[in-house]
Amino acid sequence: MTKYAFGVDIGGTTVKLGLFDQDGNILDKWEIPTVKENGGEKILPDVAESILEKMKEKCIAKNKVAGVGIGAPGAVDDDGYMCNGAVNLGWKPLNVREIMEDILGVPVKANNDANVAAFGEMWQGGGKGYRNLVAVTLGTGVGGGIIVNGQILTGANGAGGEIGHIHIEDHEPEACGCKKKGCLEQYASATGIVRLAKRRLAEDDKASVLRDGEVSAKTVFDAVKAGDEVAIEIAERFGEYLGKGLAAIANVVNPEVFVIGGGVSKAGEILLQYVKPSFAKYVFTPCANVTFALAQLGNDAGIVGAAGLILGR
Amino acid sequence: MTKYAFGVDIGGTTVKLGLFDQDGNILDKWEIPTVKENGGEKILPDVAESILEKMKEKCIAKNKVAGVGIGAPGAVDDDGYMCNGAVNLGWKPLNVREIMEDILGVPVKANNDANVAAFGEMWQGGGKGYRNLVAVTLGTGVGGGIIVNGQILTGANGAGGEIGHIHIEDHEPEACGCKKKGCLEQYASATGIVRLAKRRLAEDDKASVLRDGEVSAKTVFDAVKAGDEVAIEIAERFGEYLGKGLAAIANVVNPEVFVIGGGVSKAGEILLQYVKPSFAKYVFTPCANVTFALAQLGNDAGIVGAAGLILGR
Repeated sequence: MTKYAFGVDIGGTTVKLGLFDQDGNILDKWEIPTVKENGGEKILPDVAESILEKMKEKCIAKNKVAGVGIGAPGAVDDDGYMCNGAVNLGWKPLNVREIMEDILGVPVKANNDANVAAFGEMWQGGGKGYRNLVAVTLGTGVGGGIIVNGQILTGANGAGGEIGHIHIEDHEPEACGCKKKGCLEQYASATGIVRLAKRRLAEDDKASVLRDGEVSAKTVFDAVKAGDEVAIEIAERFGEYLGKGLAAIANVVNPEVFVIGGGVSKAGEILLQYVKPSFAKYVFTPCANVTFALAQLGNDAGIVGAAGLILGR
Repeated sequence: MTKYAFGVDIGGTTVKLGLFDQDGNILDKWEIPTVKENGGEKILPDVAESILEKMKEKCIAKNKVAGVGIGAPGAVDDDGYMCNGAVNLGWKPLNVREIMEDILGVPVKANNDANVAAFGEMWQGGGKGYRNLVAVTLGTGVGGGIIVNGQILTGANGAGGEIGHIHIEDHEPEACGCKKKGCLEQYASATGIVRLAKRRLAEDDKASVLRDGEVSAKTVFDAVKAGDEVAIEIAERFGEYLGKGLAAIANVVNPEVFVIGGGVSKAGEILLQYVKPSFAKYVFTPCANVTFALAQLGNDAGIVGAAGLILGR
């Protein structure tokens, strides 16, 4: 009997949903708004209702649903419990798995959204074929997901892979969003690159296309591609920090592959050119044999990985 | 039927062996010399012979041996293969498990010695009751072993948990044994503490008991206990570095407990006092809830953990 799975990626603005066949093909995908009023109490019931509607629409009986996988923005333990809730959703502590299984009557698995996206990239994306993988998401912040022997490294409190807050610089005057100073996220995120760029531009008057118009991670890497010397210096500083952070991670978990995703990774292969030399400089030699790949699933990584919690091995 | 297991800890000078009952009690322990001539070709046959002799002596039939666990000084993958051999033993690449199973005819498991010791501390020592643990060995160097969900984090090349070579200081003039600069091991090992001490003593003429006689990790912490101000400064610098390194590790794998062992840890609880504040300063808050414990098994951690590979869960 053909089985189906649903993948759910709960974000602060929208919830992404996907219907998958047992081979992991996306049969349908759609979004619903994330209703955060009253402590986000409608979010999970809304998701459940949307899944039940889709089952009706597609004539999928409950016994044909292998399960529902869910990625949520916060620490989720292996049982599906979020001991700190989810700030972005207004959630107090709750058990995502229990609540959804009670409503849906099918097996549910939940994990942190970054971990789930990492699992997706291993199952169907840039890390396909690997079993020991670290996914690095360079977006507004820096997130991470770690897969060891094909399993998500959830951590004791569901906070495994919080690589954005590894301390990487002893002489940082400004505080990170986490209130500490010198976190990887302060240099390797989209906003971090803008900070590095503004600092570099303030150092002297050297000509650069970055002096005209708004500076963003995209304009920096576009300027790098155009050979802008100041932009290249900025990319070198970015690469120095990110490579140093990834070397520390490699020494701890010894992965086969780093899969780099998130908005900043749209710069493409050129980004990796700036990371690899620094990584090689800082990594312990026995852990140095790592492949660098770009993420391939984009915004679908969350729903694919969530379905993978049910269907993947 | 009562079953037995053997635990083997292969070191550069001696091989430690232990006979265990199925509940993990040590029934007997002994050592044999590590014969490193001719690429260490006699080491594994010597170990096998010693085990077979012990079985004869104790009247233990082969079908009563649940297996033999082995810790070896180098990277060992999950199959027992050492792709880099073992420098300290003279070994070229070889498969420890295969060789020993061929001679002994009982199940054999092998892993890196630091990982095995970590497993031992989880199973019977300072980390008993925990399933997510990082063992930190502060000896001549700094070694580590990581347990995730009760399983050793071996890593892609068997080099998981190589925490001694996390880059921790950007302004280090001297090279580490690994040839890079600024590794955790350069500050938190027994030799690292001596380096920190000598540097501090050279800074000024402030009175200290450390100015008389040889400086070692032991004399530093003895002086700390006696209230020596210079020694306290040295311990603070040591704690700053080690806490920073452990914070990076906690952000990556989110353990429940750090188990601190090795010669330096003989200083006792006072050592933890210097590590915890720095750890708290650098760790990402969701990963901060970690217990610090001292290792309990001492030199037996290797044989206990090796037996645990067979008997533990």
